[in-house]
Amino acid sequence: MARIGYFGPQGTFTEQAVRRLADPESDEFVPFGTIPAVVAAVRAGEVERGCVPVENSVEGAVPATMDALALGEPVVAVAEHVLQVQFTLLARPGTGLDEIRTVASHPHALAQVREWLETNLPKATAIATGSTAAAAKEVLAGAFDAAVSAPVAALHYPLTELVTGLGDVKDAKTRFLLLAKPGNVPAPTGADRTSLVAVTPNEVGALSDVLHELALRKINLTRLEARPTRELFGTYRFYLDVEGHVAEQRIGDALAALHRRCIEVRFLGSYPRTDKEPTVVGSPTTDADFEAAGEWLAAIRRGESA
Amino acid sequence: MARIGYFGPQGTFTEQAVRRLADPESDEFVPFGTIPAVVAAVRAGEVERGCVPVENSVEGAVPATMDALALGEPVVAVAEHVLQVQFTLLARPGTGLDEIRTVASHPHALAQVREWLETNLPKATAIATGSTAAAAKEVLAGAFDAAVSAPVAALHYPLTELVTGLGDVKDAKTRFLLLAKPGNVPAPTGADRTSLVAVTPNEVGALSDVLHELALRKINLTRLEARPTRELFGTYRFYLDVEGHVAEQRIGDALAALHRRCIEVRFLGSYPRTDKEPTVVGSPTTDADFEAAGEWLAAIRRGESA
Repeated sequence: MARIGYFGPQGTFTEQAVRRLADPESDEFVPFGTIPAVVAAVRAGEVERGCVPVENSVEGAVPATMDALALGEPVVAVAEHVLQVQFTLLARPGTGLDEIRTVASHPHALAQVREWLETNLPKATAIATGSTAAAAKEVLAGAFDAAVSAPVAALHYPLTELVTGLGDVKDAKTRFLLLAKPGNVPAPTGADRTSLVAVTPNEVGALSDVLHELALRKINLTRLEARPTRELFGTYRFYLDVEGHVAEQRIGDALAALHRRCIEVRFLGSYPRTDKEPTVVGSPTTDADFEAAGEWLAAIRRGESA
Repeated sequence: MARIGYFGPQGTFTEQAVRRLADPESDEFVPFGTIPAVVAAVRAGEVERGCVPVENSVEGAVPATMDALALGEPVVAVAEHVLQVQFTLLARPGTGLDEIRTVASHPHALAQVREWLETNLPKATAIATGSTAAAAKEVLAGAFDAAVSAPVAALHYPLTELVTGLGDVKDAKTRFLLLAKPGNVPAPTGADRTSLVAVTPNEVGALSDVLHELALRKINLTRLEARPTRELFGTYRFYLDVEGHVAEQRIGDALAALHRRCIEVRFLGSYPRTDKEPTVVGSPTTDADFEAAGEWLAAIRRGESA
């Protein structure tokens, strides 16, 4: 049994994700009020793992997670989960759709169901609450008529699911990471992702050089987010996700090259991909290619070859 | 006098921006209900210019604008404006801060003043409305006690400014573009920005190659947004902002190189930067360098030189 922290409260999408990333039967799930609090608990060893959202197909990157990963004591991702974001409309048992005058949810969730509300509940007032779960809680208490919540909220509150599968944006997805202290690198599976943060010097072409180091080693980029650093004017912090595992020679070789080129490179973990899509590695960047080249060079340096 | 469309309604931040990008004395401002409607009106010649938000330092890129720029008949940006996002708390005259029980605004605005509301109006319920201006309108009608609005809303509604300069995130900024039909390229000022969309082939290193073409010509990137294309699996659409004007040789040469490399390159305009920061261009990428190289090559091709 492990203690697993997550960005709470209970009944939100992050709880939905953490239930897939750990074992609801044997693990203890501990909600925290903010993303930095989850990361701080992982750093302090208060929890063994921490689950936070990192990327949302509708809203983009999650700034609080990006900052927590890039700054302070390092933490690493040991797993990811990609969740289809669909909301459930919850109401007290016996409430009909036509009786709903107030609908509560987190502002971002309200923004994602606005069209549906305008079409289906044109007379209802939308109330902003601190979380989708808080909305369900307040509906249970009788403060509002209905809540737009994560499906998992129905586990915690005795409310009726009036409508499921809500969301104006089809295929809205959120990606979650399970974080741990450094020293936890999952074994390669052949379908892995490696995440890192690179701070480049304030020079024309700095990002081009970084991406070129990856391209030279046939490393495929699956995500790139750019954010200005607050500390040093004109420098950017890049969040990169690439296909592959740090145990591979081509990934290690590229990371070492970035270390030479960048003001800072932070390893954010190698972990299995949710979609289990295998990474295809061919010549001239297989581990065998790197090994043969290393042996050839070593022989030259020993004076045994030319 | 020109007709200038903008993403409305009246009294929002886009109106605040359009009043800086055109002349409130002589131009006619026409609000549209959605960003695509503004862009469609520009395309149809219904308005001469259209003002839309493109980037927000808190929320990131504005997806509706990115899609409108990348797809459909081309439009180009002819000017930009960067606005400091600060909200004003509006109430009916005579209402005191301690009497406020309901605060209305757009969900995104509510998210940006959440901390302030929790600290200063802990008992008030936050109500989500379709826009920050709609909130002011409903306050005027007596439906809610206060609205979190753009400062410009006070021009349109006879409400009292209870608090100004609101916003949990200091230095929250939104960037707006003034769009026109292609054929409108403002003259270079020496402090210009050029925007473009590039769709790269689904190959390892495609983005690296694009950025390398820019770096080889000492072109500085000021923004990079990556979004997957919906049409073709595995391909990405990149939104690039660079320093410089399409009239410069180095910019033109780079654009032509991207045209060779990419599935699609769309020119989104060259226009003066809000911050008037001049672009420094040195050897070997000045217009004179390009001209000398062109003359040298032409002489070789004519057989006059070697």
